[in-house]
Amino acid sequence: MSQTKYSIGVDFGTESGRAVLVKVDNGKEVASSVYEYKDGVIDEFLPDTGIRLEPDWALQNPADYIQTLEKTIPALLKKSGVNARDIIGIGIDFTSCTMMPTDKRGTPLCLMDKYRNNPHSWVKIWKHHAAQPEADKINEVARKRSEKFLARYGGKYSSEWFFSKSLQILNEAPSIYQAADRLIEGADWIVLQLIGEERRNSCTAGYKALWDFDEGFPSPDFFRALDPRLENIVKEKMSQDIYPLGKKAGGLTAEMARLVGLLTGTPVAIGNVDAHVSVPAATIVSPGKMLMVMGTSICHVMVDRELHIVPGVCGIVKEGILPGYYGYEAGQSGVGDIFAWFVENCVPGKYWKEAAGKRVDIHRLLEEKASTLRPGESGLLALDWWNGNRSVLVDVDLSGLLLGCTLETRPEDVYRTLIEATAFGTYKIINTFEENGVRIEELYACGGLPEKNKLLMQIYADITGREIKIAASSQAPALGSAMFGAVAAGRKKGGYDSIMEAARKMAHLKRESFRPDEKNHSVYQGVYAEYEKLHDYFGRGINDVMKQLKSIKMTIRGK
Amino acid sequence: MSQTKYSIGVDFGTESGRAVLVKVDNGKEVASSVYEYKDGVIDEFLPDTGIRLEPDWALQNPADYIQTLEKTIPALLKKSGVNARDIIGIGIDFTSCTMMPTDKRGTPLCLMDKYRNNPHSWVKIWKHHAAQPEADKINEVARKRSEKFLARYGGKYSSEWFFSKSLQILNEAPSIYQAADRLIEGADWIVLQLIGEERRNSCTAGYKALWDFDEGFPSPDFFRALDPRLENIVKEKMSQDIYPLGKKAGGLTAEMARLVGLLTGTPVAIGNVDAHVSVPAATIVSPGKMLMVMGTSICHVMVDRELHIVPGVCGIVKEGILPGYYGYEAGQSGVGDIFAWFVENCVPGKYWKEAAGKRVDIHRLLEEKASTLRPGESGLLALDWWNGNRSVLVDVDLSGLLLGCTLETRPEDVYRTLIEATAFGTYKIINTFEENGVRIEELYACGGLPEKNKLLMQIYADITGREIKIAASSQAPALGSAMFGAVAAGRKKGGYDSIMEAARKMAHLKRESFRPDEKNHSVYQGVYAEYEKLHDYFGRGINDVMKQLKSIKMTIRGK
Repeated sequence: MSQTKYSIGVDFGTESGRAVLVKVDNGKEVASSVYEYKDGVIDEFLPDTGIRLEPDWALQNPADYIQTLEKTIPALLKKSGVNARDIIGIGIDFTSCTMMPTDKRGTPLCLMDKYRNNPHSWVKIWKHHAAQPEADKINEVARKRSEKFLARYGGKYSSEWFFSKSLQILNEAPSIYQAADRLIEGADWIVLQLIGEERRNSCTAGYKALWDFDEGFPSPDFFRALDPRLENIVKEKMSQDIYPLGKKAGGLTAEMARLVGLLTGTPVAIGNVDAHVSVPAATIVSPGKMLMVMGTSICHVMVDRELHIVPGVCGIVKEGILPGYYGYEAGQSGVGDIFAWFVENCVPGKYWKEAAGKRVDIHRLLEEKASTLRPGESGLLALDWWNGNRSVLVDVDLSGLLLGCTLETRPEDVYRTLIEATAFGTYKIINTFEENGVRIEELYACGGLPEKNKLLMQIYADITGREIKIAASSQAPALGSAMFGAVAAGRKKGGYDSIMEAARKMAHLKRESFRPDEKNHSVYQGVYAEYEKLHDYFGRGINDVMKQLKSIKMTIRGK
Repeated sequence: MSQTKYSIGVDFGTESGRAVLVKVDNGKEVASSVYEYKDGVIDEFLPDTGIRLEPDWALQNPADYIQTLEKTIPALLKKSGVNARDIIGIGIDFTSCTMMPTDKRGTPLCLMDKYRNNPHSWVKIWKHHAAQPEADKINEVARKRSEKFLARYGGKYSSEWFFSKSLQILNEAPSIYQAADRLIEGADWIVLQLIGEERRNSCTAGYKALWDFDEGFPSPDFFRALDPRLENIVKEKMSQDIYPLGKKAGGLTAEMARLVGLLTGTPVAIGNVDAHVSVPAATIVSPGKMLMVMGTSICHVMVDRELHIVPGVCGIVKEGILPGYYGYEAGQSGVGDIFAWFVENCVPGKYWKEAAGKRVDIHRLLEEKASTLRPGESGLLALDWWNGNRSVLVDVDLSGLLLGCTLETRPEDVYRTLIEATAFGTYKIINTFEENGVRIEELYACGGLPEKNKLLMQIYADITGREIKIAASSQAPALGSAMFGAVAAGRKKGGYDSIMEAARKMAHLKRESFRPDEKNHSVYQGVYAEYEKLHDYFGRGINDVMKQLKSIKMTIRGK
């Protein structure tokens, strides 16, 4: 057992799948490989057909998932020269809720000629937003029946989640619903492909499918109230055996071993979700530490020993992130997206010229200019709701606001203000957690933004008044999956017996962290007081102008 | 008297002076000439010195006014070939409040070696904003003493006006105040130069210097309460003989006649102000018709038979615009300025490229794109306070707001929303007038914007629900002055006996007007209801976030 051991993590994303091969003793990344999905996000036409999708649809082709395995894992072996014998485990993570209907054997209906022309036979991914009426129905029925579970989801079940999508299939394509022997998450489907057995994971079951460690799924009564045909959805099309994270799901089948070039029986971990699997990859194995997965949006994930009902969270799931803890998830639906919007739509020609002249990226130029400003100096304030508000208000119909403009306002003033607004959004989430009993002492970050924008990270530290530590890996989800792979193998096979142990050895932080400047924090406290006032005024229905304008817009566009 | 007669109007602006020669029988412009002030707006250094001005100062050199006469009037004669004998009168208008200290003979102190190094000896123009503490004092004392006059100025005397500037001279340069035999408006100073006699006009006396047709100037008691040294300012440094508009001030002096190439004794009209003199030039000689002088800002001027106290107006002055009427003035401090700011700071590089490719002006490109949008379609709403709010709220510390942003918001959405916001600002003024008894049936427009931007004019018509007629002359102030010149001459000399008569003959409208679309108006009524809510919430102190942010900004900048 003195030979170096390795594990593999595969991260199934929105546009591509990525695999990494890491050393089990120290988490070092030895090789990585990316497969861009051939069909990408399917949101206009079903592949190889003229069948047009309705607005707000977003699908994937499960064949792309298999291709990811088939292309990337052999590439890891080839690049690294590592022998398959020394690969002790595999872990996987997926975007979520990503769900599909399959037959008894797990074959996706969309891969069968009989069904493939029906859009509902395909994989609905997280950003499929066409099931809002179904989500509304679920919320209405749950409220009417005073279902206790709603509180664990910030009072609102999302259109992105499992039963909204299932109910949409039933409503719009009852024959597909009928034909589906299983409705299954992508994460669990991939594990099924790898080991030949279904092993539903507690993370997606809890965060997306209303499952609770102590209570199980909602009752058949609840589902019947939604639609009589849905009464036995759990018994008929799902599974009530939910497996906790950090366990071995099973061993690689001979067929899959051949396909990817690994040994039959290689341990495979229970499936997981990209944001949640990043928690231990960012060294977090205890309460008080909130991870921000920062990219186009921010996902806030952390654990606590107790259940505290926090209004406006995305979800609170026992065993949903780390064994033995309640996992908390909150989020902001627009962050990097807002800056990209600003760069695309609001940066004047002369700035582009200046950036070209200096041979710097336009984001870098804006960062440079914005970093010369002091907190409070722009006189501007924004509400960061360009893409609605996911937490604390849970309202997609809210919109962005910019206030304090004068004839002296410059692009860098607005750019910095947008960054500050998203940081205030995070601060509001942190404060809401703390007000409801969840202590947050430190912040951790991973994802694209922390590497790209130091000014942004400093502003987040200054506004929240907390140190922010940065995950060393730029592929935190894949690393996290590899860590769970090592845990699936267990200590006897050269891995670890718990994800905590794996985190201590395999997860690392960057040397550099961002510490709050007390003077800046104090100025920002004054601005944040104003942010909170606007947040409540526009967000809690005192002035519903954002909804009124949206409603006028929709009426006009519908004409 | 069958020979064609002509009159001359001279419009003294901010950066230049402009003279036009028009036919008296039909108002047709025969020639025009512009003189760019050599010293322009003096806001950094006193000319020919290293003396730096403080922030918010804005001065002019009165020598530039004389140069305007000397350069432009001979040029009119030369260009047109008209004989000086056929020029029956001259009228002038000025920006206001533009005031200066002079000696007994009317020589500006700044033209004397003894005083010229003191900035307070120069002409303070309308956009000199450094007398805010003095304005605050005036308002405080007037309120304490329950001075009735305050209501005629929307409850607030401005830092731009005559006594704020006078008090600033007294406070900061008592020796200049002492040395000044007169404190005089530019309009009246030019008339003094032309005819050799002081003839203070009722327009600037009323709108800027608290003079009232029935009550005269405020009492010495009031001025003593401001500062004991100010007690006799009116008696000592001004004149209580106020001349109504539409009268002859006197005849051209021999010296001035030689300078400009006209006949000695040519009748000169009482001085006037650019916006107010435009009213008859836009054909308006009766109540119910509001003129919008539209450029970087909007000045709203109209007359009514009665005195109605309208909250938040700039001023209500009997005989201030047309003889026999109360003149009403209101305004928006940022309009064209806001669009210029947007183009400078917010239009992306790709739009500039597109405009260059199509060889169109960037404003034109934005107008084209914005005109494809329907009312309400953008889902956006703005408060047009980029440069504060002049009417109805009279608050320079308010700032701009944009609300309803999403990741789909495009530059043309914002551009159109800014136009709509300024139109809502005008609509708010119209409604405030009407709610307080001043009927407004039609709108009239002159100035730069109506010629440049048809989309803007249509939006104003749609939002206000009123037809907008456009003055035919693109030089309405100069034409108006020429009309007053013809009235100064009188009918016997080939002119007119009243400005009403002159307007009927000399003023014209464009054939094209802008009529409101009822469907658009109805959609805009819905959006305006939201505008009003925000207007009151942020403008009337319910949420003073704009002031809080400004105060934080000023504190940070001061550090």
